[in-house]
Amino acid sequence: MNNRNETATIGMIGLAVMGQNLALNMERNGYTVAVWNYEPEVVGHFMDNRGKNKRFIPAYTIRELVESISRPRKIMIMIRAGKPVDMVIEQLLPLLEKGDIIIDGGNSHYEDTARRYEYLKSKGIRFIGSGVSGGEEGALHGPSLMPGGDSQAWAEIKPVFRNIAAKLQDGTPCCDWVGESGAGHFVKMVHNGVEYGDMQLIAEAYHLLKNVGGLSIDELHRVFSEWNKGDLDSYLIEITADILTKKDGDGTPLIEKILDAAGQKGTGKWAVHTALDLGNPLTLIGESVFARSLSALKEERLSASGLLKLPPMVEEKNKETFIAQVKDALYASKIISYTQGFSLFRAAEKAYGWSLNYAGIAQMWRGGCIIRSAFLGKIQEAFSASPRPDNLLLAPFFRNEIEKSDKGWRTVIAKAVTNGIPVPALSSALAYYDGYATAQLPANLIQAQRDYFGAHTYERTDRPRNVFFHTKWTEDGEETASTTYNA
Amino acid sequence: MNNRNETATIGMIGLAVMGQNLALNMERNGYTVAVWNYEPEVVGHFMDNRGKNKRFIPAYTIRELVESISRPRKIMIMIRAGKPVDMVIEQLLPLLEKGDIIIDGGNSHYEDTARRYEYLKSKGIRFIGSGVSGGEEGALHGPSLMPGGDSQAWAEIKPVFRNIAAKLQDGTPCCDWVGESGAGHFVKMVHNGVEYGDMQLIAEAYHLLKNVGGLSIDELHRVFSEWNKGDLDSYLIEITADILTKKDGDGTPLIEKILDAAGQKGTGKWAVHTALDLGNPLTLIGESVFARSLSALKEERLSASGLLKLPPMVEEKNKETFIAQVKDALYASKIISYTQGFSLFRAAEKAYGWSLNYAGIAQMWRGGCIIRSAFLGKIQEAFSASPRPDNLLLAPFFRNEIEKSDKGWRTVIAKAVTNGIPVPALSSALAYYDGYATAQLPANLIQAQRDYFGAHTYERTDRPRNVFFHTKWTEDGEETASTTYNA
Repeated sequence: MNNRNETATIGMIGLAVMGQNLALNMERNGYTVAVWNYEPEVVGHFMDNRGKNKRFIPAYTIRELVESISRPRKIMIMIRAGKPVDMVIEQLLPLLEKGDIIIDGGNSHYEDTARRYEYLKSKGIRFIGSGVSGGEEGALHGPSLMPGGDSQAWAEIKPVFRNIAAKLQDGTPCCDWVGESGAGHFVKMVHNGVEYGDMQLIAEAYHLLKNVGGLSIDELHRVFSEWNKGDLDSYLIEITADILTKKDGDGTPLIEKILDAAGQKGTGKWAVHTALDLGNPLTLIGESVFARSLSALKEERLSASGLLKLPPMVEEKNKETFIAQVKDALYASKIISYTQGFSLFRAAEKAYGWSLNYAGIAQMWRGGCIIRSAFLGKIQEAFSASPRPDNLLLAPFFRNEIEKSDKGWRTVIAKAVTNGIPVPALSSALAYYDGYATAQLPANLIQAQRDYFGAHTYERTDRPRNVFFHTKWTEDGEETASTTYNA
Repeated sequence: MNNRNETATIGMIGLAVMGQNLALNMERNGYTVAVWNYEPEVVGHFMDNRGKNKRFIPAYTIRELVESISRPRKIMIMIRAGKPVDMVIEQLLPLLEKGDIIIDGGNSHYEDTARRYEYLKSKGIRFIGSGVSGGEEGALHGPSLMPGGDSQAWAEIKPVFRNIAAKLQDGTPCCDWVGESGAGHFVKMVHNGVEYGDMQLIAEAYHLLKNVGGLSIDELHRVFSEWNKGDLDSYLIEITADILTKKDGDGTPLIEKILDAAGQKGTGKWAVHTALDLGNPLTLIGESVFARSLSALKEERLSASGLLKLPPMVEEKNKETFIAQVKDALYASKIISYTQGFSLFRAAEKAYGWSLNYAGIAQMWRGGCIIRSAFLGKIQEAFSASPRPDNLLLAPFFRNEIEKSDKGWRTVIAKAVTNGIPVPALSSALAYYDGYATAQLPANLIQAQRDYFGAHTYERTDRPRNVFFHTKWTEDGEETASTTYNA
């Protein structure tokens, strides 16, 4: 097994759990994988244990790794994001030849990926940044893979990536080409944000059903199990139903012993940062990230709850009706969350000149990852239409779904508001819908204020766009001057 | 006037409008100001025009500038934020002596200010980063000034800063010491975010009164004028009333000709970025920034409005009642916005080890800047209490104000929701209040989900904080293991 004659299909750099599991997944699919880790003992340990008697070629130096791989070389990096990735790239560069392929499967920021793509292109090396989702289990048994970067390299890695990826029931792999430059990691970033949104929406639904609906944990379990058979069929709804059955040592539901202070690893906020920078509303995910921060202020909330008044809770009399309304609210808001996520793709296309594969992205997310759902199949269909809808809300299927859910959605939010139940994500979703569907928003007043105090100018409804006017608001008479400067 | 014998009290670098106006303000207050601009002809032009026959010392090189100022030298920089500031600092360094003071009054990011503060400290130079608000007019007649950085330098610049600052009716200057390092620009950043929030709240109130209340522009003018005499007394309400009186050439209200696509210069989003990074909910400002982005999608909204259904609008029968309710909603939400802003100060104190002057900050904002208001006097009072409340909502005055407004606030949002009027900021504010006042949020479910799919662990309600548990959710029986690792 110590052959250095370029017999490996692919090389893996980094043998932490994710790298190990992806390598094992590749090997199980028939590929010979050369493996290297910065610490040689990790390589030895892997070869003596999980890698034993398998098609792995151990490399104890990065040169050995490179020499073990058939050309053009395909080398995947699964290490900590940030500077370590740049350092490994620098170590690889003198050993590689033009046309070789580096794949970064770590949790890199898409801006770093875009930078590395350009840098490596200038060196004749083809670079792919790939989102990898599904955690340790997914890496081993079938992750969701979101590769982007050098599109000519896609043909080379496609067989491996499609073989190791999660499969839908019909065998379709959850892996397709996303787009150029940093697109792969951009899509992974939005995936993570959407995951925050989905979880917050489920939490709000749970909170409403429990407090306003008066449902017991057993009843809640039945509701989520039922929901998992319909439009909301998804991994997160499924595990929610599971979670509600779990008992603590004393036989009571474990969920009620878990502290309501949510943690976060920081990847959810990246999408919101980016949306702010690209000027694209990503309100539901923003509220979801902030809702976790608010929950984490547990001691402060405990003190505040003794001082601040909330309205008296009026429990619903008709549970079944309320359950159906909450389902409508959750479903409609979920549509808005994905609408906002895909709308961020459009903003990225405009900002970076990318061309993204919307239907393919929905397909990649249908399996192997935490947001996998039946719903994503509908999104894939919607974006497969020609012409592709500008916004998911404009797709006939989703427009119709929103119409059906609209009444329940509004009713639930109104009830939450009058009962003092916080629904930041549900109400943020509705505000987006109502804003998007409104031809005339009050932003004319904001423009007037900005022109009043800062001479920032405004456009007019009766003139073409990009013609800017300034008014001397504090003087009498007609003082409007036309300019064409870009505010 | 060509004296190089250190006769100037202060030097000004940068003679664009803001630098000119601040220099003129200083001179009017009796100070001799040395002025320099990178382009010598700008200096000459200034001396021949606005600076003519005044106590200015023109400098045509940066060395001349430095040599004109009495020691310890005080040099204020008013140039474009970013690299130019670092370049000027590098040019100044070889010319300065230990103890000299550099003041950056530009629109710098607080992280840059913190970095420059440390760098200059290592060189023996005292650095102050100061928020300057109030635009061109404010700079000339009395800005709001928010200085932070080297506290020992504060005594040196205090007379000049207090003299040129805006004054409250009792003569109190809108300038006080904010805190160390980058605190001055941090406070200015939050000021800008709060300004976005205030403007969005007013826009939502206007939209509701116009569409659900059925008020004419004249009636709206009377409402805002009336509001400006009470709790909402503020510059932005005042100019809103003004704006509503302005007529277009044909005698119709100008406001109705202004396009509802709001622009932004990007400073509002910095505060949201920072809040995401510090894990502190700043939802109302986040929604306000995104609301501008959504408004800017004017063409898309126009198409969408023809396709997406909104519920039929039910106009209010009792206008006066509705106006009072909208006022309650606006006022309560404004309290939340400032609560969130000041809460971000607390997060910054924890993250950076700063100690910020909350009451002083409120005072600085009471005059000279766009968010100036009577309301800020109440905030100043609240934070002058000993002990200082952890959160503005917990101050007795504001707790009581919220209680009085609560019913109207909830009623208005429920009406907005059922009528299809987008109220992202009003409803985000309420969700924060309800979340903050709730002892038990549904974040326990989020923690269970995170532990289920990613083994991220959770804390328990019946155990101390910082003890973390993991459950094998998919297996039977009692599988809870205790760890103390920091998730």
